[in-house]
Amino acid sequence: MSEPYNEEREAFLRVAESGRAAAAELAPLPRAAKDAALHAVADALVARADEIVKANAGDVARAREAGTSEAMIDRLALTRERVEAVAAAVRKVAALPDPVGETVRGYVLPNGLSVQQVRVPLGVVGIIYEGRPNVTVDAAALCLKSGNVALLRGSSSAVDSNTALVAIMQDALRGTAVPQDAVQRVPGTSRESVKHLMRARGLVDVLIPRGGASLISSVVQESTVPVIETGVGNCSVYVDESADLDMALAILVNAKTQRPSVCNAAETVLIHANVADRFLPRALAALKEKGVTVHGDALVRAYSPDVVAATEDDWYAEYLSLDIAARVVPTLDEAVAHIRRYGSGHTEAIITDSQPAARRFVALVDSAAVMVNASTRFTDGEEFGFGAEIGISTQKLHARGPMGLPELTSTKYVVTGEGHTRG
Amino acid sequence: MSEPYNEEREAFLRVAESGRAAAAELAPLPRAAKDAALHAVADALVARADEIVKANAGDVARAREAGTSEAMIDRLALTRERVEAVAAAVRKVAALPDPVGETVRGYVLPNGLSVQQVRVPLGVVGIIYEGRPNVTVDAAALCLKSGNVALLRGSSSAVDSNTALVAIMQDALRGTAVPQDAVQRVPGTSRESVKHLMRARGLVDVLIPRGGASLISSVVQESTVPVIETGVGNCSVYVDESADLDMALAILVNAKTQRPSVCNAAETVLIHANVADRFLPRALAALKEKGVTVHGDALVRAYSPDVVAATEDDWYAEYLSLDIAARVVPTLDEAVAHIRRYGSGHTEAIITDSQPAARRFVALVDSAAVMVNASTRFTDGEEFGFGAEIGISTQKLHARGPMGLPELTSTKYVVTGEGHTRG
Repeated sequence: MSEPYNEEREAFLRVAESGRAAAAELAPLPRAAKDAALHAVADALVARADEIVKANAGDVARAREAGTSEAMIDRLALTRERVEAVAAAVRKVAALPDPVGETVRGYVLPNGLSVQQVRVPLGVVGIIYEGRPNVTVDAAALCLKSGNVALLRGSSSAVDSNTALVAIMQDALRGTAVPQDAVQRVPGTSRESVKHLMRARGLVDVLIPRGGASLISSVVQESTVPVIETGVGNCSVYVDESADLDMALAILVNAKTQRPSVCNAAETVLIHANVADRFLPRALAALKEKGVTVHGDALVRAYSPDVVAATEDDWYAEYLSLDIAARVVPTLDEAVAHIRRYGSGHTEAIITDSQPAARRFVALVDSAAVMVNASTRFTDGEEFGFGAEIGISTQKLHARGPMGLPELTSTKYVVTGEGHTRG
Repeated sequence: MSEPYNEEREAFLRVAESGRAAAAELAPLPRAAKDAALHAVADALVARADEIVKANAGDVARAREAGTSEAMIDRLALTRERVEAVAAAVRKVAALPDPVGETVRGYVLPNGLSVQQVRVPLGVVGIIYEGRPNVTVDAAALCLKSGNVALLRGSSSAVDSNTALVAIMQDALRGTAVPQDAVQRVPGTSRESVKHLMRARGLVDVLIPRGGASLISSVVQESTVPVIETGVGNCSVYVDESADLDMALAILVNAKTQRPSVCNAAETVLIHANVADRFLPRALAALKEKGVTVHGDALVRAYSPDVVAATEDDWYAEYLSLDIAARVVPTLDEAVAHIRRYGSGHTEAIITDSQPAARRFVALVDSAAVMVNASTRFTDGEEFGFGAEIGISTQKLHARGPMGLPELTSTKYVVTGEGHTRG
């Protein structure tokens, strides 16, 4: 704390310290109190939708002036209908079970001590995110339900929307048992303001960056606060020599084209050499029909002049677009080696009718999710039945894969005795 | 990787990269292969005990020359009997269940997809530790059993012992299915050599520092590799107004004096004002008899001239000695506030016969373990029935409290379909 005086940093520390105090109040609240607060938030969002749309219009106007693409502007824009959908999502979170207080393990030791491992909130959660202002409300609702304080650091492009949304949520909380400081915006829009959050070890319990690869990698490198890495996905589909090729084609097209802009879309296809002749002509035609550019190795390029030559960068690429890298591999183990080298550890799929091949792929591929005869697109909190998702972790510590409410908790051991001392 | 050439760093990178390669081989090994390797290690330690004792004699001689206390030398010294005890501990780890492959959750979604969350190794685990050379073997055995590669960075004071122990373990692994690179010593003894480990994000999956507060805090501050904080314990015993005072006395004396040098020993006692008159004279006499120096606030000092005046530092202190800080508090909530402010989040105990008091203390105290009518000394992997312990986490992410074999794992989702695509 011996750094020179910095107004933005002081403002941040006030936010973080009031957040810490709010966390102590919020943690022991019963489910009913948290659900009532969530409904109050949802009510307020609907009641004040016009205010939100008006604030959002400022962000949209600035984005347009800056020459932002219409696709990006569509992501940014809020209408009354969209605000109502955001409020409905908050009510859905209220309806989910409360993870706090759940006994994860419980047993009695031979000496009579009763040991219970119980879920508790993490405390103060910092969320750093880009783009859509609905994340402001989604993240706040998930944190609040799991007993955590949310410190929200959205994109500067959505600052007016986010300011309005947080102010309305805080106003709504004022009439509830949840302290209004449980939801706060991190002050400032500069890159420096993110740094304050990343250096707030002791005040902030965990940071969750949600956004592009460069945002996530800079947070991971610079943060002294523990980070949960999310969402970068260079997902592969491996078509085994024993694949049902109709199934493989349907899954490949789905994984690549059903929603190319998301992290669980396929970015690479690996084809066993023994089925290349039968699979690749059909696959390349089907991908072309969907407007996909294939970046292939020499073996793939032999099947079509439309295939662009792949460079080393293509194997690493998270395109998030109608592009896919393609390679013919001599063995399943070579597919695994490719994935180990270039993959991001998000989701990989094998298409095979061979039980030994499926078993080997599952055992050797070290990713958050491994799909057997299913599209990579299923790695998703909603699809997994979690009811909500704060992100998809691609790290191994704490949480891996889609994170729902339980992943926003820690545990504590509660040990009860009758005067037990250690001999 | 644009840093200037540094021999120690290059040596470290060779270790870390061979460790990564070994991790891929080790992860899918079945339990029998890992257990056989552990028994081979135990056999080799016993067979080559003389070599180990001889290497250790070098460390002991250097420590003596450096004027190290006999207590510290006793911690460092290895005898044949101690080596046999270390080998026996390895066999005990072999007998524990294998956490890898355990299905944590498993269910079938409405669309027929089968989802299984399965335990997998973390990968490459770095352990930074001080003092006793037995940790070299203990940590390696726990990592190996849980399918993880161990990169060991012990204290420079035990470098000869650790070098011998790692060489013997590697020789033993050579005849097994476990790659010998699964257990390696981090080269170098300088402080710089620790830095290489802390900056090896991508090569090392997690760092576990085991040792004093300053070691842990420097690792936490400087590491870009995810860290699990362990072992700093400023533990408090709170004697409630409804306490059975005989029980409170027995627990306080046990928590403070049964083994003062460990992290779960009590460092602070908080006494409700309503029982101060009845409790403190007895407690101060009992502590004095055990040779404990009490650092008290003015209210405590009123009961005995032996009580030293406590300073702000005493409330924060992890003495690890026959010292204790003592304070009279007007309410249970003040005890909780004291713990929140000064505690390290390790273990706190309440002594009370009041169910509402116990419930409130458990709900409000945010520590890895909360004891009701039991000594803080029970926060321990062995006591909790884990069979072994790699450390006690005082952080909230990933693991909190005593860490056994399951805490050395991550999970992955295995999703099996029949050609499922997303609509």
